[in-house]
Amino acid sequence: MTNPRWLLPEAIEDVLPRDAARIEALRRGLLDEFARHGYEFVIPPLLEYVESLLTGSGHDLDLRTFKLVDQLSGRSMGVRADITPQVARIDAHLLNRKGVTRLCYCGSALHTLPAGFNATREPLQIGAELYGHAGLEADIEAIRLLAVALGLCKLAASRFDLGHVAVFRALAKHAGLAPEAEEELFGALQGKDVPTVRELVAGIADPIRSALLALPELYGDRRVLDSAAQILPALPEITAALSDLRRLADALADLPLSFDLADLRGYHYHSGVAFAAYCAGAAGAVALGGRYDDFGRAYGRARPATGFSMDLRELARLSPNEAPCGAILAPWPEDDALHAEALRLRAAGERVVLALPGHEGTWREAGCDRILVRRGDNWIIESLKED
Amino acid sequence: MTNPRWLLPEAIEDVLPRDAARIEALRRGLLDEFARHGYEFVIPPLLEYVESLLTGSGHDLDLRTFKLVDQLSGRSMGVRADITPQVARIDAHLLNRKGVTRLCYCGSALHTLPAGFNATREPLQIGAELYGHAGLEADIEAIRLLAVALGLCKLAASRFDLGHVAVFRALAKHAGLAPEAEEELFGALQGKDVPTVRELVAGIADPIRSALLALPELYGDRRVLDSAAQILPALPEITAALSDLRRLADALADLPLSFDLADLRGYHYHSGVAFAAYCAGAAGAVALGGRYDDFGRAYGRARPATGFSMDLRELARLSPNEAPCGAILAPWPEDDALHAEALRLRAAGERVVLALPGHEGTWREAGCDRILVRRGDNWIIESLKED
Repeated sequence: MTNPRWLLPEAIEDVLPRDAARIEALRRGLLDEFARHGYEFVIPPLLEYVESLLTGSGHDLDLRTFKLVDQLSGRSMGVRADITPQVARIDAHLLNRKGVTRLCYCGSALHTLPAGFNATREPLQIGAELYGHAGLEADIEAIRLLAVALGLCKLAASRFDLGHVAVFRALAKHAGLAPEAEEELFGALQGKDVPTVRELVAGIADPIRSALLALPELYGDRRVLDSAAQILPALPEITAALSDLRRLADALADLPLSFDLADLRGYHYHSGVAFAAYCAGAAGAVALGGRYDDFGRAYGRARPATGFSMDLRELARLSPNEAPCGAILAPWPEDDALHAEALRLRAAGERVVLALPGHEGTWREAGCDRILVRRGDNWIIESLKED
Repeated sequence: MTNPRWLLPEAIEDVLPRDAARIEALRRGLLDEFARHGYEFVIPPLLEYVESLLTGSGHDLDLRTFKLVDQLSGRSMGVRADITPQVARIDAHLLNRKGVTRLCYCGSALHTLPAGFNATREPLQIGAELYGHAGLEADIEAIRLLAVALGLCKLAASRFDLGHVAVFRALAKHAGLAPEAEEELFGALQGKDVPTVRELVAGIADPIRSALLALPELYGDRRVLDSAAQILPALPEITAALSDLRRLADALADLPLSFDLADLRGYHYHSGVAFAAYCAGAAGAVALGGRYDDFGRAYGRARPATGFSMDLRELARLSPNEAPCGAILAPWPEDDALHAEALRLRAAGERVVLALPGHEGTWREAGCDRILVRRGDNWIIESLKED
């Protein structure tokens, strides 16, 4: 049997009116909030040459990116799988400002394969990025803005997970690991796969070996930072990273923070503090963010960078349902007074739906809950009795 | 020399803050106006199987569509080059309402090749579609809504061109043309290439031959409809089409209408009245629309359909420039009173940008025109003197 023509590919979906209205409301609310914090909206393209799209982002993004041939140039293009590198390119090369630059964006990305069970292949990515500031103040601003953003979506973050890639990076460097071995160890740590970690660090000398073995256990509240200071070797990078995390813990003490020194998501392009937000009802993180200072180098200018992004489809799915607003049914306007009344109501923000002659079905299914009727010389609104 | 990594493919562009803000403002204004007329927002996916995406839409759309292989199914997918067929699919199959259904949408589409000189390969398509009503009232509503939409973009339509595909279709049918010959003739008429039309109709008997030869001249104000009634044979389809156009001319007499009986854009899927809007400053049409009644059949249900779509990038380019709104610079908030003041200003809709310590460059380039300064116990707003 051939597939019917209305069947969509797996992990690809239409968004129907009720959900689309929620997504649109959250989109506007978030972009407006970002704007009020000085984040300027940019719209990078869906398509770029693969070498721009994948620069500095690692093998993983490469596999996730759909490739196409450009009929104009014969070169290979990709449909973006992540918008953040595009925004870094805009900051580094196009805007080319000397000072702090705050940018935000919202658009679809495509993934060749879903990132997990139930994951979409077309996330609607929304995010905010801050360029040109290397201090922790910028990370604090990014995490605070994320908290405000989740609040706007009426989502209470159950946890903000903070990590710092410098810890693993310093240990890997001092262990003298070859890139492939580092990659393998990274994968095992990311999966908290302790037996494999044990195997991979077998040939490494202490104290680095025991430090790597201890990493998967170093998660929890801020006391983890004290344990880490005792357990991990006092390498300058590690001391600095723990000091950064302690400063964040102080500055963001009102948020439900937790720490995870083996959380290495985004390790391939992150360069410092990394964070993730979790909410009730979502299996994975609803937002991912962190520092990626060296990223702009590929575009001609290394700039300090921090920020976060989220999937608007997921946020809309999690945020509480709002009752859809109704509409007023109006007869087909053969009458000037009725036409004027419809204009007036629309200007006041009402939805006014014209009843086209010969309509079948119900007006309820089109969202109407009231009707304009003539009483004497006036048009008045009554409740729609139909159905 | 290798190309620098920040170079984008031809006819693909980033949208930087000032233009992005205009696009976003128009997007919201238009979607809100559509909503106030009862058009419900839907979000179809960027990707579909090619057979759903290209059904009933003709060879032209096929060539314009980027194809990809689905790693999950091994089947061929396409990135949409047009959103209208997707919305027809949603109406026909997913919503499956019996009565009138009004839908609107806004999103990117991709084209393998630019449609013309200076055309983008990534139009930001926005449109409104009305399903389930075969009467002219629906066409009138669609054209009126388009006029309102252009007004919202502060664009005065210099011309609404109306045509009707039934005229050419009836002549082609009575001429007994084979599909290939009809296609060739269609191309020549579309290009108003009179010598080729003359060649192609050479073997056809009168009155069809002279009618086809007359078509390219049948454009202008509503008197064209009277000429057409005299020149064209009184086939029932042609008489009905001219009567439709006359009714539209009466109902929309306040708009700058013109008629073109050889305008066959969208011929492959249009089924009745077709229209296009032109504005000063734009070489081509800024909006295209019309009836496509049979389109839903491929998705399991033929439904009367009419509507229009536009490219938001083009609309934003044409619509008058608005002064960007400024922002207030605030010192990094070490101070509760300042923090409260920033919150208060943002709640009132202001943009408040935090001055992160150690900033280089100017705050003007980040859009700041005012600054929060402490005077005694109060924080007050002063004009930003910098630069």
